[in-house]
Amino acid sequence: MTANSLAGDSLLSQVVIVLVSTRNPLNIGAVARAMSNFGFRRLRVVNPYPLAFREAKSAVGAAALLTDAEEHKSIAESVADCSLVVGTTAARKRKLDHDLRPLNESGRAFRRAIQSGKVALLFGSEKRGLSNEDLSHCHWLMRIPTAESNPSMNLGQAVAVCLYELARPSGPVAKTKKPVANAADLDRLTAILMDTLRLSGYTAPVAASATDEKLRRLVRRLDLSVEDAQVWLGMLRQVLWKIRSRS
Amino acid sequence: MTANSLAGDSLLSQVVIVLVSTRNPLNIGAVARAMSNFGFRRLRVVNPYPLAFREAKSAVGAAALLTDAEEHKSIAESVADCSLVVGTTAARKRKLDHDLRPLNESGRAFRRAIQSGKVALLFGSEKRGLSNEDLSHCHWLMRIPTAESNPSMNLGQAVAVCLYELARPSGPVAKTKKPVANAADLDRLTAILMDTLRLSGYTAPVAASATDEKLRRLVRRLDLSVEDAQVWLGMLRQVLWKIRSRS
Repeated sequence: MTANSLAGDSLLSQVVIVLVSTRNPLNIGAVARAMSNFGFRRLRVVNPYPLAFREAKSAVGAAALLTDAEEHKSIAESVADCSLVVGTTAARKRKLDHDLRPLNESGRAFRRAIQSGKVALLFGSEKRGLSNEDLSHCHWLMRIPTAESNPSMNLGQAVAVCLYELARPSGPVAKTKKPVANAADLDRLTAILMDTLRLSGYTAPVAASATDEKLRRLVRRLDLSVEDAQVWLGMLRQVLWKIRSRS
Repeated sequence: MTANSLAGDSLLSQVVIVLVSTRNPLNIGAVARAMSNFGFRRLRVVNPYPLAFREAKSAVGAAALLTDAEEHKSIAESVADCSLVVGTTAARKRKLDHDLRPLNESGRAFRRAIQSGKVALLFGSEKRGLSNEDLSHCHWLMRIPTAESNPSMNLGQAVAVCLYELARPSGPVAKTKKPVANAADLDRLTAILMDTLRLSGYTAPVAASATDEKLRRLVRRLDLSVEDAQVWLGMLRQVLWKIRSRS
């Protein structure tokens, strides 16, 4: 089997693997190796334990990938250029505010998305996974279908399994949605919506941060195209201006 | 997703994972953990480095599995009770005397075989994989479709990927999307949005009917769930009330 049997090479470079608060350098190395095995190239780390990042530089066949890895201060910053952000979770019964899809049903949605923009796949820390705040940056969540008795996978193995699924050779992919708004646009939209609601008395200032998370998820579920995101931004700006001009 | 969505529990117990001459205890532990994650139970090791086996007893959630692992002196002995023996290899061009199937096309053959007897899946040592002598015990060979530039995977990751594929739920798949808002809700939402925009000065009254159509399409493209439609309605009502109260 040749590399051509993996999903198109240039398409895989649209996928960004984001590791959030990873502790163990062996795990970062293992992630880099799996990325290299399956033809992925973009690794970003958000607030890694400093040693974890510096000591990871020995993964077999993945040295260049680790050298090129980007370090970011926040998830928002790490996914700003991505039009789809997918979080991974071992959660099964925990109440979730997102669509939760099994990995084996996610490949198609992923492959479609990478035709219209960068796609980020987020993995949380070894101990606690992704927090609710982390998850609020995601459009939807994905889980590997594991056994109920031991659902939580080792980070390096979880990444390998996900990348295998995403890179697996598949038939032709249905065409194609319009380009999707990126995370920076959605953040702008969320911020304006938040201001509008606050000035309208919809949200009490005291509950602002919980509402902020809810709004971020609400806006992401809209699955807006670049074009529609601009229209909504324009409308909300006008509404906000109107409310402000009368206050 | 429940454990039932993995291939039948009793069937997975027909699969025997055989590690040949494994050196690194971390890898044996990682294999045990992945087996436990995907519901496999039978681990056999052939001529492990003695320390590798004894020191592996700490894999998360896999202690019982490691305690029950069998140690064998030869591959022949380790697979004696199996009716199908499949070897894994990263080989791509090496001359092979066996059928070589990509993992993603092997699941069906595997699932069929485990209905009529035990099936062994062999993994070689970290450094050299399976030797030709080892492979001579196999009916056919399987490889994970990896990139040509770095085909060789970490042992624990390779096992995780194989077990994910073999355990993956097959057959019809349940839909998970939430109930979608009906046209009446969307019409209400459109009407309120229209009023809000008119009062904000976003839409000139004269172009109202063209804008009305555009808004209706815009709102429909949001593909809102029943629940989210109610949230948006509530928010817009409040905004509209605020604008009206000041006019």
